[in-house]
Formats: sequence, structure tokens, C-alpha cells
Amino acid sequence: MTVRRVVATGTFDILHPGHLYYLSESKKLGDELWVIVARDANVKHKPRPVIPEEQRLAMVAALRPVDHAVLGDRTDMFRPIQEIRPVVITIGFNQFFDQEKLRKELAGRGLAADVVRIGKYADGDLSSSRLIIQRIVDVRGEGVQRGG
Amino acid sequence: MTVRRVVATGTFDILHPGHLYYLSESKKLGDELWVIVARDANVKHKPRPVIPEEQRLAMVAALRPVDHAVLGDRTDMFRPIQEIRPVVITIGFNQFFDQEKLRKELAGRGLAADVVRIGKYADGDLSSSRLIIQRIVDVRGEGVQRGG
Repeated sequence: MTVRRVVATGTFDILHPGHLYYLSESKKLGDELWVIVARDANVKHKPRPVIPEEQRLAMVAALRPVDHAVLGDRTDMFRPIQEIRPVVITIGFNQFFDQEKLRKELAGRGLAADVVRIGKYADGDLSSSRLIIQRIVDVRGEGVQRGG
Repeated sequence: MTVRRVVATGTFDILHPGHLYYLSESKKLGDELWVIVARDANVKHKPRPVIPEEQRLAMVAALRPVDHAVLGDRTDMFRPIQEIRPVVITIGFNQFFDQEKLRKELAGRGLAADVVRIGKYADGDLSSSRLIIQRIVDVRGEGVQRGG
């Protein structure tokens, strides 16, 4: 039997339960979850990540639902997808891909992957790297830092 | 055969490779890794955590080396250890327990656990919640926030 690979993608700057939810739900759609972690240089639609790409990769790879994590290609986002050949590609609720456009682009490259959008993780947690960063700036942005 | 449990402890505010190293090394010392995550109210030797205890617990529990994660006791740090009955308790390189004192306290409560200090994770990563928080304050502490 062929292993059904699922691909999830993202920046994964400061890990939070929203990431876990996205990855766990993605994993359910196949046998093996592959995660493509965005390169620092390719994050352009929001501020550059705080955590460097190699560290973001290491942390995502350590999460239980994740079977393999790789860094994205510097110039062609479809290259790792062509290598992984997933049956499903998942999109997070706040990732602004056009699902139809993505499906067509995949088909044009001979990739038959289905594109599935994962819903929002609804919880009162700090489930956004942006919110965690904002909270840090709010509560620790003044005065001397100490602790670890 | 008895399952040899290992207990690791910590705050685990913003997860980083130093945590992963501590937990992976701890896991090697037995069969099952149990992690006791500090309650918000019990973090007194450094600034209060940015991430609430339930979220810190959920994120630690999602790391591959971790078999079980629990919150610490509000008043008696030895209570969960008495329940888990580990053969080894590990201490991180920057946790300021006195190993000898801890061994004696454990023995006094009929707990025969060995106490092992895990070395420092040596790498150029942002391997400290404090360093990550400081970096966030430095690079994002001014101006309007956006992104996710």
C-alpha cells in the first residue's frame, strides 16, 4: 500500500496550540505528515520571523504529529511538493492562498494533491505567534530583563 | 519488568532547542519521561511566564520525547514526584536546585530517585526563553505590530 503523505506549511515562529491543532488535523488526512517550514527570506507578507529558520525547523520537527519537516525552497515553493508528492496539502485558516488557484497550479505541474483548508482553532489561548509577541512586548517591553 | 520513569521539570515558557535537548537527554535515562510543568503562581525566581500554565503544559505534552506532562502542585513540589515515583529526576543546567539537598529530601520521603544534572545545550540558537523574549522586545518593541 502506498503511504499517503500530507503536506502542511507555515512559518511556525513561536509555537502555540493553533499550530498543534493545524498539524494534528493535517496528520489525520493521511499516513505521514510532512511540514514545509518557510525560509526566513521568503516571509514577506508579515514581519520577518524572530526565530531563525533552522531553529523553527528543529522545533516543528520535534512535535509529535510531525513525521518530517523540511525548509522551503528559496525560489520555487512547488519544488519540495514535487519531491514529497503528497495526496493532500493543507492550508491554515489564516494562510491566504487561493485554494482554486493552488489546485490549478498543482495540476499544471502534474501534482494531483487535494487542497484542504483546516479550520480555526477556537480557544482562549495565545494561539498566534503575533499575539504572543505582542504580549511579550506589552509585559516585558520596559525595564531590565532577567530570568530564563 | 517495571517501567523506569524519569521526571524532568521546568517552566517551558517559550519552547526552544535547549528544552528539547534537556528533555531528550532526560528520556534516555529511563523508559517513560514525565514532565512537571511549573504553575504560574510558583514561578518566583524569575519574571512570571508570558504563556499561561495550561498552554505551556499543552505545548510540552506535544513534544516527541515527552510521554506525560502534568502541572506542578501549588504547595508541595514533591507531591507529583510521590505519585509518579521516578527512578531518576533530572535537573537542567540552569536550574538552581542543590542536588545533595534534593536527594536528602527525597530520601526523607521514601523516594529513592537518583538526581541527574543534564549539561548545557551548546549551540548558537536562541536557546533560552529569556533570550527569545529579549530578542522580541529588541526587534519588535517599537512601532505597529502586524503579521501572525
